[in-house]
Amino acid sequence: MSKVAVIMGSTSDLPVMQDAIDILEGFDLEVEVDIVSAHRTPEKLFEYGKTAHERGIKVIIAGAGGAAHLPGMIASLSPLPVIGVPVKSSNSIDGWDSVLSILQMPGGVPVATVALNGAKNAGILAAQIIGTSDKCTLDKILVYKEGLKEKVIEGAKKVKK
Amino acid sequence: MSKVAVIMGSTSDLPVMQDAIDILEGFDLEVEVDIVSAHRTPEKLFEYGKTAHERGIKVIIAGAGGAAHLPGMIASLSPLPVIGVPVKSSNSIDGWDSVLSILQMPGGVPVATVALNGAKNAGILAAQIIGTSDKCTLDKILVYKEGLKEKVIEGAKKVKK
Amino acid sequence: MSKVAVIMGSTSDLPVMQDAIDILEGFDLEVEVDIVSAHRTPEKLFEYGKTAHERGIKVIIAGAGGAAHLPGMIASLSPLPVIGVPVKSSNSIDGWDSVLSILQMPGGVPVATVALNGAKNAGILAAQIIGTSDKCTLDKILVYKEGLKEKVIEGAKKVKK
Amino acid sequence: MSKVAVIMGSTSDLPVMQDAIDILEGFDLEVEVDIVSAHRTPEKLFEYGKTAHERGIKVIIAGAGGAAHLPGMIASLSPLPVIGVPVKSSNSIDGWDSVLSILQMPGGVPVATVALNGAKNAGILAAQIIGTSDKCTLDKILVYKEGLKEKVIEGAKKVKK
Amino acid sequence: MSKVAVIMGSTSDLPVMQDAIDILEGFDLEVEVDIVSAHRTPEKLFEYGKTAHERGIKVIIAGAGGAAHLPGMIASLSPLPVIGVPVKSSNSIDGWDSVLSILQMPGGVPVATVALNGAKNAGILAAQIIGTSDKCTLDKILVYKEGLKEKVIEGAKKVKK
Amino acid sequence: MSKVAVIMGSTSDLPVMQDAIDILEGFDLEVEVDIVSAHRTPEKLFEYGKTAHERGIKVIIAGAGGAAHLPGMIASLSPLPVIGVPVKSSNSIDGWDSVLSILQMPGGVPVATVALNGAKNAGILAAQIIGTSDKCTLDKILVYKEGLKEKVIEGAKKVKK
Amino acid sequence: MSKVAVIMGSTSDLPVMQDAIDILEGFDLEVEVDIVSAHRTPEKLFEYGKTAHERGIKVIIAGAGGAAHLPGMIASLSPLPVIGVPVKSSNSIDGWDSVLSILQMPGGVPVATVALNGAKNAGILAAQIIGTSDKCTLDKILVYKEGLKEKVIEGAKKVKK
Amino acid sequence: MSKVAVIMGSTSDLPVMQDAIDILEGFDLEVEVDIVSAHRTPEKLFEYGKTAHERGIKVIIAGAGGAAHLPGMIASLSPLPVIGVPVKSSNSIDGWDSVLSILQMPGGVPVATVALNGAKNAGILAAQIIGTSDKCTLDKILVYKEGLKEKVIEGAKKVKK
Repeated sequence: MSKVAVIMGSTSDLPVMQDAIDILEGFDLEVEVDIVSAHRTPEKLFEYGKTAHERGIKVIIAGAGGAAHLPGMIASLSPLPVIGVPVKSSNSIDGWDSVLSILQMPGGVPVATVALNGAKNAGILAAQIIGTSDKCTLDKILVYKEGLKEKVIEGAKKVKK
Repeated sequence: MSKVAVIMGSTSDLPVMQDAIDILEGFDLEVEVDIVSAHRTPEKLFEYGKTAHERGIKVIIAGAGGAAHLPGMIASLSPLPVIGVPVKSSNSIDGWDSVLSILQMPGGVPVATVALNGAKNAGILAAQIIGTSDKCTLDKILVYKEGLKEKVIEGAKKVKK
Repeated sequence: MSKVAVIMGSTSDLPVMQDAIDILEGFDLEVEVDIVSAHRTPEKLFEYGKTAHERGIKVIIAGAGGAAHLPGMIASLSPLPVIGVPVKSSNSIDGWDSVLSILQMPGGVPVATVALNGAKNAGILAAQIIGTSDKCTLDKILVYKEGLKEKVIEGAKKVKK
Repeated sequence: MSKVAVIMGSTSDLPVMQDAIDILEGFDLEVEVDIVSAHRTPEKLFEYGKTAHERGIKVIIAGAGGAAHLPGMIASLSPLPVIGVPVKSSNSIDGWDSVLSILQMPGGVPVATVALNGAKNAGILAAQIIGTSDKCTLDKILVYKEGLKEKVIEGAKKVKK
Repeated sequence: MSKVAVIMGSTSDLPVMQDAIDILEGFDLEVEVDIVSAHRTPEKLFEYGKTAHERGIKVIIAGAGGAAHLPGMIASLSPLPVIGVPVKSSNSIDGWDSVLSILQMPGGVPVATVALNGAKNAGILAAQIIGTSDKCTLDKILVYKEGLKEKVIEGAKKVKK
Repeated sequence: MSKVAVIMGSTSDLPVMQDAIDILEGFDLEVEVDIVSAHRTPEKLFEYGKTAHERGIKVIIAGAGGAAHLPGMIASLSPLPVIGVPVKSSNSIDGWDSVLSILQMPGGVPVATVALNGAKNAGILAAQIIGTSDKCTLDKILVYKEGLKEKVIEGAKKVKK
Repeated sequence: MSKVAVIMGSTSDLPVMQDAIDILEGFDLEVEVDIVSAHRTPEKLFEYGKTAHERGIKVIIAGAGGAAHLPGMIASLSPLPVIGVPVKSSNSIDGWDSVLSILQMPGGVPVATVALNGAKNAGILAAQIIGTSDKCTLDKILVYKEGLKEKVIEGAKKVKK
Repeated sequence: MSKVAVIMGSTSDLPVMQDAIDILEGFDLEVEVDIVSAHRTPEKLFEYGKTAHERGIKVIIAGAGGAAHLPGMIASLSPLPVIGVPVKSSNSIDGWDSVLSILQMPGGVPVATVALNGAKNAGILAAQIIGTSDKCTLDKILVYKEGLKEKVIEGAKKVKK
C-alpha cells in the first residue's frame, strides 16, 4: 500500500503540519510521521532520505521554518517527490526565509513547494501524486473537489441579496 | 503510457519552459506541449483543465509570468498534480509577482511550485511523480542523481590545490 | 438601472468587502453580492464572467486574498471594467501575494487594483465609473468629496493651538 | 464625444505612456495628452484636476514614477475615475516606490492602479469604462478580446508536437 | 521668532506626531499644529504650502501614512525645508508604502525623510535646522546630546557584571 | 559665510555625489568635499563629526552605500543637520541596504534621508536649510522652483496634440 | 583566560541579548556585558573598540536594532572577530533594517551576522571561535551538538505513530 | 599550522569565492579549496563536515547561491565556526534567497553570515578568528586595517577642494 511520509524539523512545527496528516487520513492513505532535523540530526536525515523509497514510501512531505533546509536536503538524498511546507516560525522574517530557502532549489533537485503554512495543500498534493497511479484515490480527489464547490455555494446563498 | 503536459501562457515563455521539455524527453517520457492562456483563452483553459486526466496525462507542468494564474486555474479544474513554474517576464517586479501568484494558493487547491524560471526542476519533479508508480522511471532518476554527483566531483578536481 | 456586482472568493472576505457594499448603497446604486471562487467554483466563475454584462451589470468589484485569481479571471471573461480588491487573508505573506497577483496582469487584460483591503475605495471607484455617464451619480461624488473636506476641517479645529 | 486624458509627470514617461495613447486610438477614442507634474507644476495640477470633468473628459490616465503623486493628487481634485500607471523610472527601487505610492491610497480617494509600466492596460481599462455607457466601444472590446485569443491559438499551433 | 509647523494628513496620525510637538516644545520652539490632507483638502494644502514661508514658519514637519503624498506636495509648493514622517497606518503594507512614497521624491523637490513613525527625530532635525542660525538652539542640541549619553551610561551600570 | 560639507565613504561614491556639489555651487554656496569612511577611517570620522560645526559648516551631506553608517555616525557626533544620501553600490541588495541603514535611525539622532542616489535633492535640501536664515538663498530657491515649472511647460508643448 | 564581550545599543536589547550571555556561561566562558551606543555614546564606542583586544577579549558580540551601526562600527575599530545580532526593535520595518545594516558591510570590515534576534547562536559561534584554539571548549561544543540530537529524538518518539 | 577551508556548491561560485582565497593567502594562511554540493553530493558533504576539524582545519568558509544549504549543513555537521557567503546566482531573486537561507539558521546551529558576494570579508573574518589565538595573524590584521585607512586618505586628497 502507498505510504506518505510527513516529517518536520521540530515538534513546534506539528500544529501546522497536522493539517497534512489529517487530510491524508481523510483520503485513507497510510501516513508515517517523524521529526527529522537537518541541522540537529543530520545522521537521521541521511538515513531517512537514503532509505525512504525502499520502505514503501511514495511521497515525502517535509515542513520547516527559518533557514529551512529539511525539504531540500531530503530531496537531495531521495529519488521520491518531496513536497516542502514553509512554516512561519517565531523570529522568521515574515515567512520569507522559509519560503525562499525551500522554493529556490538549484537545477537538478526540485522541491514541490506549497504556500506558507500550507500543510493542508501538501497533503492534497501528495494524494494527487498517489492518484496518478491509483484510480481509487483519483476518484476521491474528484469527490473532494466537488465538496469544495458545495461549501462555496452554501456561502453564496447566505450573502446574496 | 504516461504523458506529461507542458503548457504555458505565451510563446514568450517557451525559452524558459523548453528546459522542462528537454529533461522529460531525457527521461523518455511522452510530452505534450501547448499554449494555454488563462487570461486570453479562458475557454481553452477550461476545456484543457477539465479533460487532461481523461487523455492519459498524469502530470501538468504550467509556466506563467506576472500575475500568473495559469497554474492555479488548471489546478482548480483538474484532479491531476499541477507543477507551477514562475517565469520572470519583462515588467515583472523582480519575479515576486509570478512566484507569489503561483505559490500562495488557498487551502484545497495546491500547486507544486518550483524556483523562479525553474522549468528544469519542474521536469524532474514530474518524472519523480511518474516514478512513484513506474519502476523504470524511478531507476532513471537514481541514475540521474548519480550523474549530478559526477559533475561536481569533476569540478572539485579542477579547483583543488 | 446601473448595477454594480460585488463578488468575493470566500465568505471570509465579507467583513472586508462589506465596505464596498455600504458605500455603493450610500450612492444609491443597485448592488449584487455573490461568492464566486476561482479555485473552488470555476464553472460558476465562467458563467458569471461571461454573462455579467448581459444582465445590466456595469462594473464588477472582485475581492480575494493570497494567490488571488478571481479579479484577473473575471477580467479575462468579461468585457466590463473589473476592480480588484486585494484582501489580506490569514497566512498571507503580509498582503504582498494578493496585491501582486491582482495588480500585475499581463497586457490585454486590465484589473483596476485598489489598496490592500481597500474595498471602500473600490466602491467609490465603481460609482465614479457609473458617474461617467450618469450626471446624478457624478453630482453625488462631488458632494461626497466635499464631505471628506469637512471632516478634515473638523479635525483640524481640535488639534490647532 | 467621450474623451480620455493621458497625462504624465515628465516627458521621460512618454515611451511607457505611448502604449495607452495607441490603444485608445485603436478604440477610436479621443485622446488628450499633457505633461502635468505634481511636484514641479502644482498649479497646473490643480487647474487640470479641478476642471477636467467640465471639458468633456470622462477618464484620466496618469502615469508617474518614484514617489508618484500625480495619480493620487488628480484623484483628490477630480470626480472622474483616475487610472494610475506606475512607471519604473531610473533610480526607482525596482518599481516598488511607484507601485506603492499609487496603489495604497487612503479611504475616500481611489486610484485604479494597473501593473508596473502597464500603460496598455490603462488604455484598455479606460475604454472599458467608456464602454459601460457606449455600446459601440463595448462591442470593440468584445472584438479585441477575440483577437487576443486568436494570437494565442496561432502561437499554440507553432509549439505543439 | 522661528516657528516650526507640524502638519499631518489625519487626526489619526496625532498619536505618532505628538512626539515631534513635544520635543520641539522641549527646545522652546514655537509650534503650529494643523491637519492638512493632500487627498481630502487639496485647496488647504495649496494655500498652506504656498504661504507658510510668508508667515514666519522656518521648517515644516509633515506626517502621513499609506500612499503618503502630503510631505511631497508641501515640498512641491513651499521653498522651506520639509521633513517627512512616514506613519505606519492600519492597512499599510508594513510601512513600506509610506516610507517609499515620502522618500523617493524626484530630482528637484526633496523631502527630508526620517524613520517610520520617527516623529521625535523629525522634531530634533527641525531644531537642528533652526540651530544653523540660532546659537541658543544649537547649544540646546549640544546639551540634549549630552543627555542621551547619560541615559546610556546609567543603563550600562545596571547591566555590567 | 555659510558652508555645506559634502562627504562620502569612498571615491567610488563621487559620480553620484557630484550632483550635490553641482547644485550647491549653482546656489552660490561654499562647498567642502571630503572622503570620510566610517569603517576604514573611524578616527577621521570622529574628528570630522566633532569639529564640523566649529569650522563654519552649517549642513553636512553624507553619502554611502551598503551597510551605510557614515550619515548616522556623523549625526551621532555633530549637532548639525545631517542629510543622508543612500548610494546604490555594486553588491547592494537593490539599494535596500543603504536606504534602511540611513533612514531607520533610532530616536534621538535623526538623519534627513533623501531618495536612493538622490544627491541632487540633498544639495537642494541643504540650500533650503541655509535659506531658513539667508533671504538671498531663499530667493534663489523660489527662482529655482520657477525654473522647474518652465521645463515641464516646454515638455508639455511637445507632447500635446 | 578567554573573554567574550556582549555589548548592545540599549538596555531594551537585553531581553534578546541575554540568550548570548546564558549560552556563553553554559560553555564556562567569561563574559563581559556592557551598553555601548554607537549613536548616543560615540566616545565610549571608540574607546571600547580600540582597546577591547588589549584587555583579553577574544570575540565581541554586538546587538542592535533599526539602523544598527554598533556591530559595524566596533568591527571598524577592533581587530577582533565581531558577531552582529540584528535585534527586531519596535518601529523596525519587520527587522529588515537591522538585518541589512549589520550584514551588508563593505569589503575590508566584516561582521559575522546571525539570524534576527539570534543571540543564542551568537553565543555558540563565539564559543566555536574560542574552540579553534581551546580543545576544552571544542569538546563542549561537540557535547552540545549531541544534546541537540537527543532533544529531537525525544520529540520524534512523541509524534511517531 | 592553522588551515582555512574554502568550499562552494559549484564551480560557478568560484569567481566570487576567489576573493576569500586571495585575501587568506595575503594573510599567509593555508587554504584548502573544494567543491562540496549539499544537493548533489550529500555524501561528500557529510564526510567533509564530520571530519574537517580532525584534519587541522580551524574555520570553514562556505559559499552558495539560491536556496543555499551548504553553509548551514556544514555547520550542522562540524563543531568549527562556519562562515557563509551568500552568492548571487543567476535566477536568484535579487540575492534574497541566498541571504535568507544562510542567515536565518535556527537556534543551536549558527552560521557567521557575511554580505551578498562578500567572500573577501569572509576571508578577513577567518583570519580574525585565527588571530584570536595567533598573535602573528592578529598583527597582520592591525596592519591591514591601517592599509585601509591609507587608501581612503589618498582618495580624500584627490577630491578635496
